[in-house]
Amino acid sequence: MTFDVGIFGASGYTGGELVRLLARHPEARIAFVTSERHAGRPLSEVFPHLGLLPELICRPLTDFTASAECDVAFCALPHLTSMDAVPELLERGMRVVDLSADFRLHDAAQFRQWYGEDHRAADLLDEAVYGLPELGLREEIRQARLIANPGCYPTSILLALAPLLKENAVELSSLVIDSKSGVSGAGRSAVQGSLYAEVAEGFRAYKSVGHRHTPEIEQELSRLAGAPVQVRFAPHLLPQSRGILSTCYVRPRLPLMEKEWRDLLASHYQDEPFVRVLPVGQFPSTLQVRGSNHAVLSVALDERTGWLMVMSVIDNLVKGASGQAVQNMNLLMGVDESAGLEQLPLFP
Amino acid sequence: MTFDVGIFGASGYTGGELVRLLARHPEARIAFVTSERHAGRPLSEVFPHLGLLPELICRPLTDFTASAECDVAFCALPHLTSMDAVPELLERGMRVVDLSADFRLHDAAQFRQWYGEDHRAADLLDEAVYGLPELGLREEIRQARLIANPGCYPTSILLALAPLLKENAVELSSLVIDSKSGVSGAGRSAVQGSLYAEVAEGFRAYKSVGHRHTPEIEQELSRLAGAPVQVRFAPHLLPQSRGILSTCYVRPRLPLMEKEWRDLLASHYQDEPFVRVLPVGQFPSTLQVRGSNHAVLSVALDERTGWLMVMSVIDNLVKGASGQAVQNMNLLMGVDESAGLEQLPLFP
Amino acid sequence: MTFDVGIFGASGYTGGELVRLLARHPEARIAFVTSERHAGRPLSEVFPHLGLLPELICRPLTDFTASAECDVAFCALPHLTSMDAVPELLERGMRVVDLSADFRLHDAAQFRQWYGEDHRAADLLDEAVYGLPELGLREEIRQARLIANPGCYPTSILLALAPLLKENAVELSSLVIDSKSGVSGAGRSAVQGSLYAEVAEGFRAYKSVGHRHTPEIEQELSRLAGAPVQVRFAPHLLPQSRGILSTCYVRPRLPLMEKEWRDLLASHYQDEPFVRVLPVGQFPSTLQVRGSNHAVLSVALDERTGWLMVMSVIDNLVKGASGQAVQNMNLLMGVDESAGLEQLPLFP
Amino acid sequence: MTFDVGIFGASGYTGGELVRLLARHPEARIAFVTSERHAGRPLSEVFPHLGLLPELICRPLTDFTASAECDVAFCALPHLTSMDAVPELLERGMRVVDLSADFRLHDAAQFRQWYGEDHRAADLLDEAVYGLPELGLREEIRQARLIANPGCYPTSILLALAPLLKENAVELSSLVIDSKSGVSGAGRSAVQGSLYAEVAEGFRAYKSVGHRHTPEIEQELSRLAGAPVQVRFAPHLLPQSRGILSTCYVRPRLPLMEKEWRDLLASHYQDEPFVRVLPVGQFPSTLQVRGSNHAVLSVALDERTGWLMVMSVIDNLVKGASGQAVQNMNLLMGVDESAGLEQLPLFP
Repeated sequence: MTFDVGIFGASGYTGGELVRLLARHPEARIAFVTSERHAGRPLSEVFPHLGLLPELICRPLTDFTASAECDVAFCALPHLTSMDAVPELLERGMRVVDLSADFRLHDAAQFRQWYGEDHRAADLLDEAVYGLPELGLREEIRQARLIANPGCYPTSILLALAPLLKENAVELSSLVIDSKSGVSGAGRSAVQGSLYAEVAEGFRAYKSVGHRHTPEIEQELSRLAGAPVQVRFAPHLLPQSRGILSTCYVRPRLPLMEKEWRDLLASHYQDEPFVRVLPVGQFPSTLQVRGSNHAVLSVALDERTGWLMVMSVIDNLVKGASGQAVQNMNLLMGVDESAGLEQLPLFP
Repeated sequence: MTFDVGIFGASGYTGGELVRLLARHPEARIAFVTSERHAGRPLSEVFPHLGLLPELICRPLTDFTASAECDVAFCALPHLTSMDAVPELLERGMRVVDLSADFRLHDAAQFRQWYGEDHRAADLLDEAVYGLPELGLREEIRQARLIANPGCYPTSILLALAPLLKENAVELSSLVIDSKSGVSGAGRSAVQGSLYAEVAEGFRAYKSVGHRHTPEIEQELSRLAGAPVQVRFAPHLLPQSRGILSTCYVRPRLPLMEKEWRDLLASHYQDEPFVRVLPVGQFPSTLQVRGSNHAVLSVALDERTGWLMVMSVIDNLVKGASGQAVQNMNLLMGVDESAGLEQLPLFP
Repeated sequence: MTFDVGIFGASGYTGGELVRLLARHPEARIAFVTSERHAGRPLSEVFPHLGLLPELICRPLTDFTASAECDVAFCALPHLTSMDAVPELLERGMRVVDLSADFRLHDAAQFRQWYGEDHRAADLLDEAVYGLPELGLREEIRQARLIANPGCYPTSILLALAPLLKENAVELSSLVIDSKSGVSGAGRSAVQGSLYAEVAEGFRAYKSVGHRHTPEIEQELSRLAGAPVQVRFAPHLLPQSRGILSTCYVRPRLPLMEKEWRDLLASHYQDEPFVRVLPVGQFPSTLQVRGSNHAVLSVALDERTGWLMVMSVIDNLVKGASGQAVQNMNLLMGVDESAGLEQLPLFP
Repeated sequence: MTFDVGIFGASGYTGGELVRLLARHPEARIAFVTSERHAGRPLSEVFPHLGLLPELICRPLTDFTASAECDVAFCALPHLTSMDAVPELLERGMRVVDLSADFRLHDAAQFRQWYGEDHRAADLLDEAVYGLPELGLREEIRQARLIANPGCYPTSILLALAPLLKENAVELSSLVIDSKSGVSGAGRSAVQGSLYAEVAEGFRAYKSVGHRHTPEIEQELSRLAGAPVQVRFAPHLLPQSRGILSTCYVRPRLPLMEKEWRDLLASHYQDEPFVRVLPVGQFPSTLQVRGSNHAVLSVALDERTGWLMVMSVIDNLVKGASGQAVQNMNLLMGVDESAGLEQLPLFP
């Protein structure tokens, strides 16, 4: 069952990663890519590592007529831009996987509060499905017209905490999340803070209060817990290109042993192809998932202080963005959920 | 006032860093260095960057007669080894700055619990002074015969939290500390986990429960708070050579504004030459202190959740080890506390 | 046409890379892996990134009975060890792809000169086929019983220079080759020189005279040129995990323009699936081939001085080792030469 | 003998490095710094690692009246900009150390050829002294009004080759120079090619023909050789922040042994405080000079092919730029040539 896809905004890291995955997908065919800045140029000039795909020429961003040629449109446009493009695409009959943050929050007031602008397609917020299949959303995703592909941090954090909140196993008021991300998460824009010489040997925190992924995390955790949840979420920037590790500190409500916490997570995800839980005593490394669509989790219980720690690693550009988008596309199109995502991690 | 120093165990990273700092110290003269493994060889073969100091030849480790030639002995031997050497050095009349963990805990039972061995010089535990001058220990250090130079993580964490606990400003039961260290903290031993190809792009947690720096942190925080303090301390390994950033999450007892928290820290350290507190809204980077003896702190108050976050960066090999040892030596010998430590950070 | 393969010596980086590629190969099935040091343990403990393959348990290295179960044996044992194992494997009827250097030189005297030992299976040196298909060796490889998989540096260099020497286009006495390799080329052994803190920011040359890849390069270049060729080959160590870039300086015999040199290379490789030649003015980056089996070449002609420069990049663990081994296996077994090697490079 | 200095264009990496070195110089006092873009802001906002120097406020770039306050002006402006500022500074009576390329070539025609513009202060080209003291230029520097501080690549290359050309020891037509530089050499401008995610794991060549440092290298080598010299100079970009390693391939004219070549270099530099030559068999690493003003050289003679290889490492921001500028200032002002430059390298 072959089908056609288009990529709007292909010149960023998530765009390039979509091409990498889709070009080797057994069923999908890349019908077109767009890039306003590079319109008319081969994508392989923008991404020399795609030199094997000389046939992909960037169209102008706003060439929505292109959508007529595809079954699924990936929207990899910047935040606050996507909401202007998506309605047009839907109208033309496309199914859309949107990688921006524009359709992740269901509440327009929340959106305004965290993004500082009114939502210009607020009527779609209810319809958009949050595209994290492992959160019990698989069936909704299959039926969706518009999928809001989750943020990279939220993906790593929700996978770590979902089972605990679903089981009402931890205190809701005690969630402290210390996340660390590779610098590709900041995108391909040329800004001083992303220069090699500024990042290497320069680990640091940023947006320690008020990072925009916070409401997205809280929305989904609240849904799972059936009660309002707030989190202390603090992101940090790693001197590496790819990978997110989130360290989540929670206070247990249930008196479980470390092994039981581990098993709780493991059994929750036992049928999931992309989530693994390590044995007690092992800790995941970002290098262990690089280039793959997998999340690896582990737990550590500190009996002295009572804190339970759940760690999670993903590749921010794959399970945290483009791989998850392909996974959602697979669900949309009714093909094997793992199609095109079987690659093993690249180590070292 | 010139004086002589000796370095026992000079072939590790902290040993090399001691030489770097002491070779340019205005008053100290390196009388000798020892290394069992490299005895008889020039230190510049062990550390090519010290090629300008061809005169330093490694003596055997156990050549304690050497101590006769120095006023201050730096002991940079491994943990559980130092406690066998230090008594001998003291007996011979040296003043000793010990960089190992062997004399940091005052309680021999605690030592046995965390290090798994009986302490073989337990009678010195009371006498040893914890060498973190900024913790109100400056006068004790000046008078000491034996200084236990603090661990790298504890230095970063205690500087961040000391003012808060001294002022009884935070809840003692809520201390969550997420620390990240460069790989030089693991030493120069050739182990697979420290290989370039395993560390690069491979951020990860380790010893998530029960790291041996925990009791050292708790001992000093308890002393400052005047009450028992426990901490949830979780270390992580950064893909970089130097630097520690500790992110401390605490719940306030006082209803202060973010700026007031910042000022509380700033006024506490206003006379300290090696501690700076950033203005509200700025966050420190490890690259900002590399190669220098400085600590840089900052705060972030999340009004939504009530959590206060205190960050701290140091160079683990300088303020976290050898620079602090030189600072302690300066106090011991009555010279300017900053002597030999004026170098500005190396950026980028 | 499914077939079985075995991997002898699976615990090094090339072994892990063979597993990564073969586990997703459409026709090959990994029948077994061996590791002396880790015998009895799951390979996923040795390589956490292979956690998805819990069924692979390391057998003892010398369990040659295993060979009965496979059609092709990959020998990823250390140099000077492989030559003791390979004859046994051949006797048992296996076809062997040997990744060590033991069977690359056809001349036993050369071997003794460069490796300092007598060859203990010298009778096989004639039979072994040098496994670089793009050097006009494809047909020989298809028929081979024993394939000597080329070294990483030689692969990068021979691909760059082969067309020039075959066409008698350059002076044979002027070959200067400055190569730079990522540190994974040094293997996974825990040695001080490969530690993160020694490699990062520490670019350096090594084995500047007499690197053992030299005779291998000269053997193949001489064969192509039909005359004895000597090269000045100088390797350097890059602060990165993967990738080789070789810069080859040659003096032209033919009065071609830059574009003509480029076209000479491009036309030579026009039917090769794994070699690309960049347009004039573009230069390859190691990041452009990471994780893939591709080589990318480019040329630069300095008209002022007359020197022609040919650059080449490969991933040392893929085209420089395990990917090339899989390519050779594909030829041996008569399946599509690109099977299992279609992955696009991982960028960034 | 205290004196005052000013830094024009302080917001780039070389500007920041000048401040790092001069702020701890025993005689120099930083009277002012300028930055057009950051005028009015503290320099410590531009460079957080300079937080200890809150008193330095950026003046507008063109505030030449500032020059009245200083004895020596460092000009760290971009190429093609400096030549407009320097005449003004000289007129106001300053002695100038110019870190741009504008005054390094003595021949205006050469300048036009390589920089594509007419020189707008060509009358100063004769007067400007090339500021590489180790090239026999020390006395000229002491007397100079205008010093053209050498480029980073030329410094590394000229130190390696000067003794050989001075002694007429090598063939002039055979100079092949393969240089590798850390990315700080590209400056602090936010360009895509300098982003962390593009540089890490992405070693590559650039400007393989026609790099603008070529004529500067040739000018000085020709002067030393007393005959026209051309070089094949090819620069590469390393995935690291600091450091240059140049590998120079030359054909000997003299039939010396490896040790004799080493001794030729060593004796040439025996009185130089900033140049060391390694024993035969040792090779320098960029990490061995990081943060220091030292150059380390070594030789390797390949008796098989006859090629002599001379390697050289420097820190591109210190001996390759700001440290050398301070060294030149010391000569200008008649203080100890090493003043402010005694720091040992930072390793690791």
